[in-house]
Amino acid sequence: MKKTAVAPDGSPARDGVAVHVGWGERRYPVFLREGLLAELPSLLDVHVDAHRFALITDDVVAPLHTEDLERRFLEAGLDATLLTFPAGEASKTRKSWAILTDEMLEAGFGRDACVVAVGGGVTTDLGGFVAATFMRGVPVVQVPTSYLAMIDASVGGKTGVDVRHGKNLVGAFHPPEMVVVDPLVLGTLPFEERTQGLVEAFKHGAILDRAYFDDLSRTLGELLAADAAAASSAVRRSVELKAAVVTEDELEEGYRQILNFGHTVGHAIEAASRFDVGHGTAVAIGMIVEARVGERLGVTEPGTAERLEEAMAGLLGDLPSVPDPDRVAGFLGSDKKARGGRSRFVLLRRIGEVDPGEGWTHAAAPELVTELLRDL
Amino acid sequence: MKKTAVAPDGSPARDGVAVHVGWGERRYPVFLREGLLAELPSLLDVHVDAHRFALITDDVVAPLHTEDLERRFLEAGLDATLLTFPAGEASKTRKSWAILTDEMLEAGFGRDACVVAVGGGVTTDLGGFVAATFMRGVPVVQVPTSYLAMIDASVGGKTGVDVRHGKNLVGAFHPPEMVVVDPLVLGTLPFEERTQGLVEAFKHGAILDRAYFDDLSRTLGELLAADAAAASSAVRRSVELKAAVVTEDELEEGYRQILNFGHTVGHAIEAASRFDVGHGTAVAIGMIVEARVGERLGVTEPGTAERLEEAMAGLLGDLPSVPDPDRVAGFLGSDKKARGGRSRFVLLRRIGEVDPGEGWTHAAAPELVTELLRDL
Repeated sequence: MKKTAVAPDGSPARDGVAVHVGWGERRYPVFLREGLLAELPSLLDVHVDAHRFALITDDVVAPLHTEDLERRFLEAGLDATLLTFPAGEASKTRKSWAILTDEMLEAGFGRDACVVAVGGGVTTDLGGFVAATFMRGVPVVQVPTSYLAMIDASVGGKTGVDVRHGKNLVGAFHPPEMVVVDPLVLGTLPFEERTQGLVEAFKHGAILDRAYFDDLSRTLGELLAADAAAASSAVRRSVELKAAVVTEDELEEGYRQILNFGHTVGHAIEAASRFDVGHGTAVAIGMIVEARVGERLGVTEPGTAERLEEAMAGLLGDLPSVPDPDRVAGFLGSDKKARGGRSRFVLLRRIGEVDPGEGWTHAAAPELVTELLRDL
Repeated sequence: MKKTAVAPDGSPARDGVAVHVGWGERRYPVFLREGLLAELPSLLDVHVDAHRFALITDDVVAPLHTEDLERRFLEAGLDATLLTFPAGEASKTRKSWAILTDEMLEAGFGRDACVVAVGGGVTTDLGGFVAATFMRGVPVVQVPTSYLAMIDASVGGKTGVDVRHGKNLVGAFHPPEMVVVDPLVLGTLPFEERTQGLVEAFKHGAILDRAYFDDLSRTLGELLAADAAAASSAVRRSVELKAAVVTEDELEEGYRQILNFGHTVGHAIEAASRFDVGHGTAVAIGMIVEARVGERLGVTEPGTAERLEEAMAGLLGDLPSVPDPDRVAGFLGSDKKARGGRSRFVLLRRIGEVDPGEGWTHAAAPELVTELLRDL
């Protein structure tokens, strides 16, 4: 067992960095370093009080990483069982959750189990929900392998599945014991998923850190090539920023809403397109439209929408036109955050800063959004 | 709205009593008074930050109480929707949970929802799990209507459903906002359920309070007749005792195990009989057998098992013989608490006191249990 890979204080030795998320009993570390996946068994041994590990992953990620992982678990003398499910958002269902739970029971897992979710956002959400409800809750360790999961899905303790009425409507807050991020695995990520995930990184810059926003634009080529140094730096900064927000407001009662910038319109575009438009692209358009809303309301500095548009064009190329603005506006009203018919939006003051508004949001008429969507 | 029924500090006025359970943010009150069901809307209005209420109950309890309740919600100007499911343990499944969740989504419930679970243990467990996972958790208010639910299921924050591999294997800890107990509703409880539920009351006396154990024996006639004064007094004492244990150890890491007295053998008897033997009866036999185990190991004062046997005979009449002791012993090993083949048992020192043992349990050989089951 490679105990030497871990320093006495529990942090990975050498240049390993831990960002801490949350507070009190729910505080957990995010470890981030190139090559860290190889040390996963040592980290589990040090940080998790469990006797058996359920490695949950999808059938696309499994052939990439699990052979190595299973060997390392064996070498470390840890008892691990691999459970896979079909890759894709279509698997993020109560049915997959029930199947994985039953497979754990069938394999004899008990309360001393720990779920290790290795994969993208679907895996971290689904595996997290299995852990949250297995015998009323066992620990989960998140091992995100996509940009999106690294910088977004793994920080905040949200787990869940989709149902007919919408995405993530069934789930639980279940903070992980730790998050283990190895930027080297991004090399295996399809190009399309790199671009989609980096939209969230730009969002973090847009709401909290102008210098980071500019850095992302500057190093975009390296980031898209999954260059390990550029990726490490961006993932670390996004995790730090998101962790700071989530720690401030773990139960999403107020400040955390700023993370929804671009998402009110973005979710409506996704739904209106029946999920033809990818999440990243939808949020990219959402950020631009919401910046324009802010400019029209006199909240957002003029030129902000243009700056976002340039950055998103650099990342995604030409943005698709929004199919049916009226249909999108219709979905705005059914958003979880809508109250009394009027949608509320997180609005920027400028790149790097959110306007506090009322509870970090502003109301805007659906007609204004429809008009701006049509102009796009 | 009968605001006057609630005192300025939020506790029910007049002779209302609140026992507090848990700690910190998870602390919640248990209100207990005859006639309190009529004041449920006022209590919700004062204690719960929600705009819409989902009244979850089964199709046996619904005709008894919900017509009155719906009228009172209407009078109080609260928005309530009634959702029912077929009565019985067979409904405590992921399927019922999914159906109730979808019915809430269909009815347009959002994050400002509150689940109000009105019924026995199946309803409090199932309704609690719906609340725990609806949009990652909305508040639940427990309104137990059976002895068992009043004194046991509603205190502790456990929610969940049964699966093929066993009972309560899928679920969450989700402490309620409050518990509202009205002993008057016990008048509608079938006689068989009164006896089964009171077994848990005797258990509380056996592990923690000899005087309470003796009181229960003395007032047994009134308790079985659901006499409101006797029932109030017993339910209050059981809630106080269980609340004290749960507050001491909310995440079931140690001390709380004492509540499992009689349950290690009891669960095995239930499982071995394919749930022909009711939970109360199985726990009653379990307490007697575990007291004998304790006497044989020299941990439990001689005569304790006999005292338990007398009390259980008074409550349940002749106890059924255990069908197949070897089969029961086989189920002991598969208990959630078993480790390394040997089962562990909570053992009394005497009526009213548990022996601390090692982490509040003692190991015993399955052969000893088989022998004692055969002697019964």
